[in-house]
Amino acid sequence: MNKNYQNLVHRLEEISRLKGVMSIIQWDQEVIMPIGASEARANQISALAGVIHERMTDRRLGEYLDELSAQRNGFSTFEWRNIEEARREYDLMTKVPGQLVQAIAALSSRGHAIWVQARRENRFVDFAPVIKEFLELKRAWAACAYPEKTAYDANIAVFEYGTAAAEISVVFDQLKETLIPFIHELKHHTYQPDVSILQGRFPLEQQAALARRISEDIGFQYDKGRMDVSVHPFCGGSHPTDVRITTRYNESDFIESLYAVIHETGHALYEQGRMPDACDLPASESLTMGIHESQSLFWERMIARGRGFCAHYFETICKTFPDNLQGATIDNFYQAINACRPGFIRVEADELTYPLHIILRFEIEQDLFADNLSVDDLPEVWNAKMKQYLGIIPPTDTLGVLQDSHWSSGAFGYFPSYTLGAMYACQFYKALREALPDTESNIAAGYFAPIKDWLNDNIHRQGKLYTPQELVVRVTGEPLNPQHFIHYLKTKYAAIYKLNAF
Amino acid sequence: MNKNYQNLVHRLEEISRLKGVMSIIQWDQEVIMPIGASEARANQISALAGVIHERMTDRRLGEYLDELSAQRNGFSTFEWRNIEEARREYDLMTKVPGQLVQAIAALSSRGHAIWVQARRENRFVDFAPVIKEFLELKRAWAACAYPEKTAYDANIAVFEYGTAAAEISVVFDQLKETLIPFIHELKHHTYQPDVSILQGRFPLEQQAALARRISEDIGFQYDKGRMDVSVHPFCGGSHPTDVRITTRYNESDFIESLYAVIHETGHALYEQGRMPDACDLPASESLTMGIHESQSLFWERMIARGRGFCAHYFETICKTFPDNLQGATIDNFYQAINACRPGFIRVEADELTYPLHIILRFEIEQDLFADNLSVDDLPEVWNAKMKQYLGIIPPTDTLGVLQDSHWSSGAFGYFPSYTLGAMYACQFYKALREALPDTESNIAAGYFAPIKDWLNDNIHRQGKLYTPQELVVRVTGEPLNPQHFIHYLKTKYAAIYKLNAF
Repeated sequence: MNKNYQNLVHRLEEISRLKGVMSIIQWDQEVIMPIGASEARANQISALAGVIHERMTDRRLGEYLDELSAQRNGFSTFEWRNIEEARREYDLMTKVPGQLVQAIAALSSRGHAIWVQARRENRFVDFAPVIKEFLELKRAWAACAYPEKTAYDANIAVFEYGTAAAEISVVFDQLKETLIPFIHELKHHTYQPDVSILQGRFPLEQQAALARRISEDIGFQYDKGRMDVSVHPFCGGSHPTDVRITTRYNESDFIESLYAVIHETGHALYEQGRMPDACDLPASESLTMGIHESQSLFWERMIARGRGFCAHYFETICKTFPDNLQGATIDNFYQAINACRPGFIRVEADELTYPLHIILRFEIEQDLFADNLSVDDLPEVWNAKMKQYLGIIPPTDTLGVLQDSHWSSGAFGYFPSYTLGAMYACQFYKALREALPDTESNIAAGYFAPIKDWLNDNIHRQGKLYTPQELVVRVTGEPLNPQHFIHYLKTKYAAIYKLNAF
Repeated sequence: MNKNYQNLVHRLEEISRLKGVMSIIQWDQEVIMPIGASEARANQISALAGVIHERMTDRRLGEYLDELSAQRNGFSTFEWRNIEEARREYDLMTKVPGQLVQAIAALSSRGHAIWVQARRENRFVDFAPVIKEFLELKRAWAACAYPEKTAYDANIAVFEYGTAAAEISVVFDQLKETLIPFIHELKHHTYQPDVSILQGRFPLEQQAALARRISEDIGFQYDKGRMDVSVHPFCGGSHPTDVRITTRYNESDFIESLYAVIHETGHALYEQGRMPDACDLPASESLTMGIHESQSLFWERMIARGRGFCAHYFETICKTFPDNLQGATIDNFYQAINACRPGFIRVEADELTYPLHIILRFEIEQDLFADNLSVDDLPEVWNAKMKQYLGIIPPTDTLGVLQDSHWSSGAFGYFPSYTLGAMYACQFYKALREALPDTESNIAAGYFAPIKDWLNDNIHRQGKLYTPQELVVRVTGEPLNPQHFIHYLKTKYAAIYKLNAF
């Protein structure tokens, strides 16, 4: 093997392993750590972050990359992608001055605390200066990191490399055009699903056992992962052989935790399914946030919110909670967990209203970066868009513009990934059904192995070998096409709401 | 503050924090990690170990130390101890060639696997070459690390800096002289404690609740620590605000897990009690293995195996396990948990026979390093000493020379710390009773706070400010004196066994 490439591999592996260590101590902080250890842990994380930063920006790493980039020939696709990805990361890390990186990190930490209090006290005015300062810093960061991109596109690139706001706009406009009137129609339709059947008391122990069983059924490998409890559900871990999902349990709502587990299991299957024997190299890593989200939403929505899945598990669910769901049918259950109910809170939104929460945020971010919107006007604009898109106005900013943590840590450009993921999931599912026509009956029979295998082969093991755009074409035969998503939603919801004509 | 000292502090803090991270991922490996992650975790540990080694041997650290050592004046005791300890660590790390360090690490890993199998199959002959190779490497290591010491003393210094084998021999000989005939006398005495009262089935959940309560009663702070389950009980964690003890539960023996928890709590109280605001600097760290063990044994033996403790908790224990201990009295219980029963296995030994297990190992190690004993003769020598000291001969090497893991990882010189710790604990306890005459009645009343406070003040917060020898004199008014330990054991056991004359 090429000596420079070998040196590069050693350095990339070391960085990947140190990042794995970081993931574990962050997981530990969220799930396990005694509260009194916060300060010590912050110091430990900062020490390790310093080491990782030093390794990622090491001059010798740059020299290897320079020499390897100049060669170009004689590398396999996998090797070349490792070089390219390492190059991109290195450039990104070295182009931005350390002082700016530190200023952003300091503001993230301060901004989060300010946001927590502003949200609690419904005081947007306290949080506005944080957003303003972030916009300044993030513009400066964008000018260093991706001088060829607009500031917003540069921020999107952190999460969704290769996708620009202009492309997202085209897609999101199609969604808006259909979803706004469709949601309005459903809201005023005579037939409505009966969501009251989901009410009751659901003992936590039974919820946990059910969630564990279903996550195992769909393919989560517990010898290479864990499930625990945390304040916010997430998928973490340190390696494809150590993938850790979390959930939280609510005694009056088992759907929330069960579907959170299925969602996180989808993320986990991506990680557990990555190409073996190369796990510490960048080309084996997950592609983008949007593709990651496509995997969680694939299982949560395309599979688990489908009628076949409900049919398969309905009896088990009824047996798990014998005091509840009395007299309900599979269809009652299926309709109830899919009811469309415009609400203020993004994370509680259904499949149909969720994209509008995202589009609202995307448009606001775009306007903020383009200087078409003043931060001080944010609450007003937020509420006007909520009225326009979902027909409701948040009574407080806590339930409106202050609800998400993303901006408090400077994660601008993150939101579009959620809905890109939903559209990718839908398009992948269509391709899966074409490739494996038995999919619907397999789901109804609780036989998920072929689905997982197909995702492993077509997506998980592809790592970063292709861009999301290339991958979608390879897997589905065409570029991202929002009409599949629109068709899926309209068909599904027309049936649930018994619309006469569609 | 002196600029060089400030630089030193920054570097030492970074090293301490990275070591804290290492402790967490090692704890995670023992307690939490999915089994499939072993290989990935080994790589992560190795990457982090490489970083820590690099930091600890950094040339600039050596330069700061050179300049600071040359100054000497103007430092507080605490500052000067940090400089001295950092100097000692740095010298140790830089004097031993990397190749030798790697050879020892490689043999530890290989040796452990060989030992596991040899022990399972009762084949000492398979393990003997590991010991031979270790003796070679450890002699070479000693010549680099502590050229002024004998090879065995150099190995002892890793665990018990400042104590030489010659001093240990003097103390151990006094123990032998008394304990061997005393144990013989007890064994053949007519009155024997009734240990059958401890038999029964003890549900794990109740055991865990009892252990948690008692560990909290004696002072373990659960907001700065955790208790979990692992294969072997240990005390780990990453910082005095993050101290993690583990135990294991055996349904047919609640004493084993309860006293393991109390033992580990003793270690934990040392860590949680370290000087505040300086936790990331070496002078704040625990002193030696022997002093650490003195803290675990202080609580396990001096407190929890005492009659007052038994009196206080007897009713609680009976209520916890209502189907057991029927008709037993406090004295039955106190006698049963203290019964002297010579056995093959060190970790199951009582207070009286434990020192002889240690002395046997110490003498063997001393002879091995002095070339007075061939490795091939180890099983024979082991069994002869067991006969001489405890009157029993192990039927297999698995129950004899192969029982401990220490030699498989090259931890020669570790064993003496256990019994040094027991003697320190006894002498500290005597000093505590003199300082706080209400101690016995406080224990019987379950009032442990003054004891913990006294240990915090006199030992935990003293860190590495003094040598163990200095500390013992400061706390107890005299050097380590095995006669206190002998007197304690003889008095206690004469009463338990109702010996006529003592």
